[in-house]
Amino acid sequence: MTNVLITSASRKVSLVRAFQQALSEEGGGKVIAVDASPLSPALYLADEHYLVPPSHEPEFLPVMLRLCKQLNIKLLIPTRDEELPFFAEHKQRFAEIGCLVMVPDPLTVRICQNKRLFIEFCHKRGFATPKTYDAKSLPVDIEFPLFIKPQRGKGGRYALRVDSKEELELALKRVPDPIIQEFIEAPEYTMDLFADFSGKVISVVPRERIRVVGGESFIGKTSQNPALIQEAVRLATELKLIGHNTIQCFLDNNKVKFIEVNPRFGGGASLGFAAGAPTPLFLVKLLKGEKLEPRIGEFEDNYIMLRYTEDLFLNAGELTSRRFP
Amino acid sequence: MTNVLITSASRKVSLVRAFQQALSEEGGGKVIAVDASPLSPALYLADEHYLVPPSHEPEFLPVMLRLCKQLNIKLLIPTRDEELPFFAEHKQRFAEIGCLVMVPDPLTVRICQNKRLFIEFCHKRGFATPKTYDAKSLPVDIEFPLFIKPQRGKGGRYALRVDSKEELELALKRVPDPIIQEFIEAPEYTMDLFADFSGKVISVVPRERIRVVGGESFIGKTSQNPALIQEAVRLATELKLIGHNTIQCFLDNNKVKFIEVNPRFGGGASLGFAAGAPTPLFLVKLLKGEKLEPRIGEFEDNYIMLRYTEDLFLNAGELTSRRFP
Repeated sequence: MTNVLITSASRKVSLVRAFQQALSEEGGGKVIAVDASPLSPALYLADEHYLVPPSHEPEFLPVMLRLCKQLNIKLLIPTRDEELPFFAEHKQRFAEIGCLVMVPDPLTVRICQNKRLFIEFCHKRGFATPKTYDAKSLPVDIEFPLFIKPQRGKGGRYALRVDSKEELELALKRVPDPIIQEFIEAPEYTMDLFADFSGKVISVVPRERIRVVGGESFIGKTSQNPALIQEAVRLATELKLIGHNTIQCFLDNNKVKFIEVNPRFGGGASLGFAAGAPTPLFLVKLLKGEKLEPRIGEFEDNYIMLRYTEDLFLNAGELTSRRFP
Repeated sequence: MTNVLITSASRKVSLVRAFQQALSEEGGGKVIAVDASPLSPALYLADEHYLVPPSHEPEFLPVMLRLCKQLNIKLLIPTRDEELPFFAEHKQRFAEIGCLVMVPDPLTVRICQNKRLFIEFCHKRGFATPKTYDAKSLPVDIEFPLFIKPQRGKGGRYALRVDSKEELELALKRVPDPIIQEFIEAPEYTMDLFADFSGKVISVVPRERIRVVGGESFIGKTSQNPALIQEAVRLATELKLIGHNTIQCFLDNNKVKFIEVNPRFGGGASLGFAAGAPTPLFLVKLLKGEKLEPRIGEFEDNYIMLRYTEDLFLNAGELTSRRFP
């Protein structure tokens, strides 16, 4: 009996379902979802749920440790960027009570979450990225359009294209801690990469982002592109990624230019599961002590995800108030 | 047997389902979905589907007329703003083959789709709107922040807040055919208003927009607010709205300030259906010749919609190529 905890469950209903299915295929277990807000639909679709303090509050750690212990959680899946440094730092505390946290080490999290550090890392290790400039070191004869975004941004917030010097100057005032990049008009890919807990890459599924709504892929298509897969494996190895990761890049004239890595599940991950890389199942198998053989490239090519919205209705009085403990 | 056609079906799966349910409660009938793109998930969840030319192409009218005639369509639901003027103009052609189109007259569509005309209309009839300025007639001592958006915008595209004169000047160059408004920080509401084909208002469900993703409500809550309901009924009557309409406004110190009216179903309409105003059912009843009595205010208060994403998967080879005929 393996219980899995998903934090910041929010709208991640398909992730909850994927773990429920994995557990039912592998001997049973519950998916427990937690969030700070009762307005999170995934809470109501998990096997059990609790409201917990936000991760920046001091009670978060003792509450989560108590919860994992009492509910016999064997695997904890952080899903929110803001929580990753916390869980990376306290991973050992959870391991001591028998709970594995799917998060890489703190340095890897730090590199992934700071676009400047990530670009430096890429350059040192020979990975391509979009050409990147500092506000101060911008060439006088720089060509427009450019792309500007915050150093620690997420979901495309504050990211914008600028077409002239004037626009750039205003944007520099507006965007917090900005970095400036060349504007690339090439297909954008997300890769779902899975590595076991020793860092051995098991699966990689590149999917083209055909239509994006609010930062999430709403139409995606898998792609058996060897250049993408090969570079992703190399990046994952150098970065020491473990578990499920979401890697974003452009494919610019067959050159892979990395944008960012999120060392967690992302919104469109279910396309990878459906195409042949059910990483929640891989995780449950690892937990049970199974060894996984790499199955890189074993997924259905040109597999398409069309996403739509589904609603959960309830009375304001039915919103959960179930706190742990 | 009543067949219903939904155009530009796109991701409107919950609308397709609501009509399927209404028809099954009222003696049967099929929901047929059409779209110009095979990447529209709602196509695959309707009872039947076809690819049709985009609405700006000359073949669109003959194809749609032939389709409605051959498939015995009794009710046509346009869902895309760009199609509304077309259907308003050709409504009579469809009526002649026994197909009712849920669209108001062309003048109403024109007023709803042009923010400047809409604001003029509101002022003439005594409805409040956010204070609105022309780029040319802007007071010298105007206070910031302001809100700028295109005259014919949709889904929040190009709409943005500006905090200074410089930002405003740049935005004026960037936003196509811009209008400038005061920036209101008050709760925003969408109202689902239904009127029969004579324009008599049957139901109004105000819902607060608690969280918006890509222009669509992802968290909403119904509200029994008499000021909102009363102003919506009056606006609908003056505008000669029919069928289902989506009305957006701020509630600023209990004053209703209208932003826009979309004379069609919107993304969050299913909350209204669930709360007690199943307007697809109302439409099917009207088609069958029933008279509807107004039931304004008959819906569940503080009813909450939590929205999440659901995926449809298929191989690129399984994408539909079913054209009509």
